[in-house]
Amino acid sequence: VTLARLEHRKLTALPPAELRRRFRAGLDVDTAGLAPEFVQASVSIVPEENAADFLAFCTRNPSSCPLLEVLEPGQWEPRAAPGADVRTDLPAYRVARDGDVVTVPDLLGVWRDDLVAFILGCGYTHIGPLIEAGVSLHHLDRLTQQPVYVSNIETRPADPFRGPVAVSMMALPGDQVATAVRVTARYPFAHGAPIWIGDPARIGIDLSAPATGDPPELAPGDTPVFWACSQTPWLAAAQAGLPFFAQHAPARMLITELKASVLVDGLA
Amino acid sequence: VTLARLEHRKLTALPPAELRRRFRAGLDVDTAGLAPEFVQASVSIVPEENAADFLAFCTRNPSSCPLLEVLEPGQWEPRAAPGADVRTDLPAYRVARDGDVVTVPDLLGVWRDDLVAFILGCGYTHIGPLIEAGVSLHHLDRLTQQPVYVSNIETRPADPFRGPVAVSMMALPGDQVATAVRVTARYPFAHGAPIWIGDPARIGIDLSAPATGDPPELAPGDTPVFWACSQTPWLAAAQAGLPFFAQHAPARMLITELKASVLVDGLA
Repeated sequence: VTLARLEHRKLTALPPAELRRRFRAGLDVDTAGLAPEFVQASVSIVPEENAADFLAFCTRNPSSCPLLEVLEPGQWEPRAAPGADVRTDLPAYRVARDGDVVTVPDLLGVWRDDLVAFILGCGYTHIGPLIEAGVSLHHLDRLTQQPVYVSNIETRPADPFRGPVAVSMMALPGDQVATAVRVTARYPFAHGAPIWIGDPARIGIDLSAPATGDPPELAPGDTPVFWACSQTPWLAAAQAGLPFFAQHAPARMLITELKASVLVDGLA
Repeated sequence: VTLARLEHRKLTALPPAELRRRFRAGLDVDTAGLAPEFVQASVSIVPEENAADFLAFCTRNPSSCPLLEVLEPGQWEPRAAPGADVRTDLPAYRVARDGDVVTVPDLLGVWRDDLVAFILGCGYTHIGPLIEAGVSLHHLDRLTQQPVYVSNIETRPADPFRGPVAVSMMALPGDQVATAVRVTARYPFAHGAPIWIGDPARIGIDLSAPATGDPPELAPGDTPVFWACSQTPWLAAAQAGLPFFAQHAPARMLITELKASVLVDGLA
């Protein structure tokens, strides 16, 4: 057991509010596997003038952009995590301004009263339930970051938003694929069931070259399983040439106070 | 549209009792796709002295041997199809006696008062729901017989029954695999969800050499999906060296009067 693994195990057990406090204080880690009972979410931030089009894009692409919540312009406290601040409580952010992209620890320096935050469910919500069902998540055991790829599958556009679907990938033993489908299908608010299972080349993907995250190690008999991913709106915003767009940095999510099991039953 | 296809379409629409009547009168066809709302079942017939062990084998291997019904010794009318006769109402049968295997149109010539019929759910039950969900079943469009293979996955033994799991296979486009999992998982009484998805070699299978049925044609991007199959007890009985064992011939099933949708809800 490495030091990194021990440190990760300690983080896993912390409540969401304490994790958010540490991220606000500067901790920058992959949030995969942390607070495994709770919904993890991505945050996409657009100027008010683009908000209606972005909302339409989300509703037309629900598996890539499962909408949990839209905040009022200028507001930063989500209902999904009372007391939280979407500008500071994620480990890191990506900001695109006039074609330049920077990664920053918070959004305080770029925040404006006309910015609208969209909270979208994230596939990291699946991790706790998958582990409970006995699915082997080797990339987590290895403390590597789940790879995300740009597929050749097209989103349904909502002008000016359009472009390809980004997909996250897990390589699973052939006897665990059906279980992974059945578990993740229960969480449509976190991308739901896989959108592609099998040959990566057919959807334009070279497994060794992820857009973000680490290249996977496949064992013999492993099948690549792909879920829609919340980097899809990042690609759509870049393609639209928005003067401002901000998002969680890859693998750095908002950990909410929503329990995934409660959301499944429609009780939140 | 070929004559064979037209003929098959006409059969598809017939009620179960009429199909069983035609099979009794001598019609010998693959029952895939016929009476698509109804549960199709395999029939395994063992001497009374082996019935308790065979029952234990079924309960230990529920995905291969989903038990719908066990008849009394010598009885031939199943509750699943009132008025039917399991000795005559399937299109064809395989009989193993003292090491010899024959395929026969009915069991009247070999029937004895000490024989016990087991009715096990069959994956053909999935076909109607899969088509309704939009899954492409190319082997059906081509009027070929679904291939079945002997895998290297082992059953849980119940002495003297033991041996490998037989699996049926469908090659599905990568974007339909999750749907096929979700649909078939609803029918545990018909083998349920796939037990292997992906690399056939890893479970000892060469796709071009099925044990029964036709070798599949895979399109680019197709993923092989494998379900447990009711030829598993045939293999287990052969391995046990039973002096008598009879079963439906491959792809020649009992079409019951049970509606699959009703069984899902536990109402039958």
